[in-house]
Amino acid sequence: MNEATRVLLDESCIPRNWYNIVADLPLPPPPPLHPGTLRPVGPDDLAPLFPMELIAQETGADRFVPIPAGVRDVYRLWRPTPLVRARRLERALGTPARIYYKYEGGSPSGSHKSNTAVPQAYYNAREGVRRLTTETGAGQWGSALAFACAQYGLECEVWMVRASYDQKPHRASLMRVYGATVHASPSQMTGAGRRILAEDPGSPGSLGIAISEAVEVAGAAPDTRYALGSVLNHVLLHQTVIGEEALEQLAAFGETPDVIVGCTGGGSNFAGLTFPFLREKLAGRIDPVIRAVEPEACPSLTRGAYAYDFGDTAGLTPLLKMHTLGHDFVPDPIHAGGLRYHGMSPLLSHLYELGMFEAVAKRQSECFEAAVRFARAEGILPAPEPAHALAETVAEALRCKESGEPKVLLTALCGHGHFDLNAYDRHLSGLLEDFALPRERIDAALTGLPGAADPSGPSGP
Amino acid sequence: MNEATRVLLDESCIPRNWYNIVADLPLPPPPPLHPGTLRPVGPDDLAPLFPMELIAQETGADRFVPIPAGVRDVYRLWRPTPLVRARRLERALGTPARIYYKYEGGSPSGSHKSNTAVPQAYYNAREGVRRLTTETGAGQWGSALAFACAQYGLECEVWMVRASYDQKPHRASLMRVYGATVHASPSQMTGAGRRILAEDPGSPGSLGIAISEAVEVAGAAPDTRYALGSVLNHVLLHQTVIGEEALEQLAAFGETPDVIVGCTGGGSNFAGLTFPFLREKLAGRIDPVIRAVEPEACPSLTRGAYAYDFGDTAGLTPLLKMHTLGHDFVPDPIHAGGLRYHGMSPLLSHLYELGMFEAVAKRQSECFEAAVRFARAEGILPAPEPAHALAETVAEALRCKESGEPKVLLTALCGHGHFDLNAYDRHLSGLLEDFALPRERIDAALTGLPGAADPSGPSGP
Repeated sequence: MNEATRVLLDESCIPRNWYNIVADLPLPPPPPLHPGTLRPVGPDDLAPLFPMELIAQETGADRFVPIPAGVRDVYRLWRPTPLVRARRLERALGTPARIYYKYEGGSPSGSHKSNTAVPQAYYNAREGVRRLTTETGAGQWGSALAFACAQYGLECEVWMVRASYDQKPHRASLMRVYGATVHASPSQMTGAGRRILAEDPGSPGSLGIAISEAVEVAGAAPDTRYALGSVLNHVLLHQTVIGEEALEQLAAFGETPDVIVGCTGGGSNFAGLTFPFLREKLAGRIDPVIRAVEPEACPSLTRGAYAYDFGDTAGLTPLLKMHTLGHDFVPDPIHAGGLRYHGMSPLLSHLYELGMFEAVAKRQSECFEAAVRFARAEGILPAPEPAHALAETVAEALRCKESGEPKVLLTALCGHGHFDLNAYDRHLSGLLEDFALPRERIDAALTGLPGAADPSGPSGP
Repeated sequence: MNEATRVLLDESCIPRNWYNIVADLPLPPPPPLHPGTLRPVGPDDLAPLFPMELIAQETGADRFVPIPAGVRDVYRLWRPTPLVRARRLERALGTPARIYYKYEGGSPSGSHKSNTAVPQAYYNAREGVRRLTTETGAGQWGSALAFACAQYGLECEVWMVRASYDQKPHRASLMRVYGATVHASPSQMTGAGRRILAEDPGSPGSLGIAISEAVEVAGAAPDTRYALGSVLNHVLLHQTVIGEEALEQLAAFGETPDVIVGCTGGGSNFAGLTFPFLREKLAGRIDPVIRAVEPEACPSLTRGAYAYDFGDTAGLTPLLKMHTLGHDFVPDPIHAGGLRYHGMSPLLSHLYELGMFEAVAKRQSECFEAAVRFARAEGILPAPEPAHALAETVAEALRCKESGEPKVLLTALCGHGHFDLNAYDRHLSGLLEDFALPRERIDAALTGLPGAADPSGPSGP
């Protein structure tokens, strides 16, 4: 076992391929459906929104997808990211467990989102697109895409959920520093926005609404495409650089993981870390427990239905088979904005149904407690999203303390919390709310699922 | 020449010694004086404020000071820091110059300040101190010390300049996450604070006032010591890890620097980068131009007197021979809070008098313009302080473009600007003020120098 604290890799070790787990599955994931015909969507359906290369990646089955030199060249600004042994946290907990975290917060925009923002901007620019639209909740994705667009000379237009826009003005400022235009959503600029505002002029917005706005604008302009920061297969694909590097770094530490923990919102961070390890597990080379952590306020995996549903609120996207709380579900205002999404990546949902990983849900106060513990020991201030993964990592390490097992724990620290100090203030002052989510609220939301009034959800097309 | 973008070093390459430039000077720097006796202060004068080991370092003349294992162990959380070739900025500028930046913003508290906070907390803890007090302006130093105290189980109490406390509440939040107590300064807790508030109940505070408060509290409690984030010899000493690593990394790039640029407030970041290069220059192995950049609103090197003056406003510190605008001088509210100090490190001032480096002053609008240019090209959002160094680096690169000279430029990017987005907002909206500083205001401030009504200042003891 290596005595290092951090294993850094030279930039020559940036992965040369993204890993597509679809190639290794016993069963392919159910396809997205056209909401009108209920037939699988084809490339032509997606062409108004995405460049051809990303559509090919979305539906491709090749095990490895080469990372273009023009993408690796931008990755070099911050990749490979460090894998760190949390020795001080281990000591503070008095655990025999060995805790490792892969830190993505050193990227230009401060989270793992840059890993997919860069290739998305790259492929769009190469296919002659002039402008990208997107939505953002907490703002990590919007800043990542703004940065990526600046790299390839694209315009970037972001619809930011009104509640976050007001609470975290600095996230919008960062996007503007990178040259992007930012609108609070719902806005008067789109039909979807105007409809919501007509009903509720004070609407705080939601990710689903912001997606509707960005999709509407991209669909209407020939030189404009749309970019999504999570959920879709090509996004998860791009994030696998995290896990590929972590595999190599954990081996450099001389370790084999026993438990791998990540947080899930749309699922891209969790997939990015775990897919390469799942490949090794499917091949019988390692056998870690793999565990997703979601907020109790938005428990799509642990309490949602597995059903076809829209990715957005207005119903503009294809139908996706996924774990969902219903596209009308508006989660309580927890501080982990990146985890406030009614659905879950269809690919991850499929893997969950196949039993390839487990899931737990956490209250936000437990997450902030773990985050403060982590910051005091390790120095880095975690974003509220990975604080969920840290809470479970700490809980696992304390179980190891009881049992005496020196397990090897690996987690993804997918971003820093420099824009989340309001939330830390509330936690330290004892003002943080934990939201109870009654079963009836979920049941009510699930009755809104397309094609099913049954709370268990439609069973497929 | 290496084709890499970043040169990372393994943690085994963390320097084993700090470098004390005093050992290599043709003339020793003038000593600090006791304000009552005007005799050089001795260890006993400093003992109420600092632990013995730091006092020894403050006055020591050994060329190299070993870095204790207990300090290197914490350094491993973020050191060595990367040296990055700013290829994208070079391309954006169209310059033949090759631009390198040493990035310290990846430290736990987001700036180079952690490099000295950690050893200061370490030595205090080892000598049985229970609590450290300090002042902070923009908040980088306060967060660094709060983090360092958490590492060694010390209490940390911070007086934060009222103007910054109100403008940047999140910096105080970060200190609290690390477990520190934070007061707005001037406060009612000290005689110095009460005197200021009696005269001006709405005082926005200043670094000089906050220092007075922290020094007063430390001096009165036997288990409490004071920690300073810049100016003093031992602080500059600790920062030399920056330059030692950069020397090795620039060699790995296969480069020799032609111009080295850093920003100066109290001087520790500039000294940290340049002292090891100055050692090599004194030895005749390299011959770079070395240039300090200060704000036009606080031009201690370019327009101050070289004179004995107090380090704080209330006159509690020893007299320091330094470039100063007078301890009563209150700089205009530029956003680079870390550069708003009336004086300059006595050691750096001495080197400046010896002609070992040159200095220029910049308006803040030019600095923010360079910072935005940098962020769009390189991704990292610079703090307003290193934005000063970037402005001069960009100017130098554009001169190279005109002359066609492929010079090698090296600069210190000493911190990120995640807590400075208000300032970026103002810049992007065209609301940023550039402050003119009339000669008369400096003259008036200099008449307040101890022992001299003459604006050129006292000539020494």
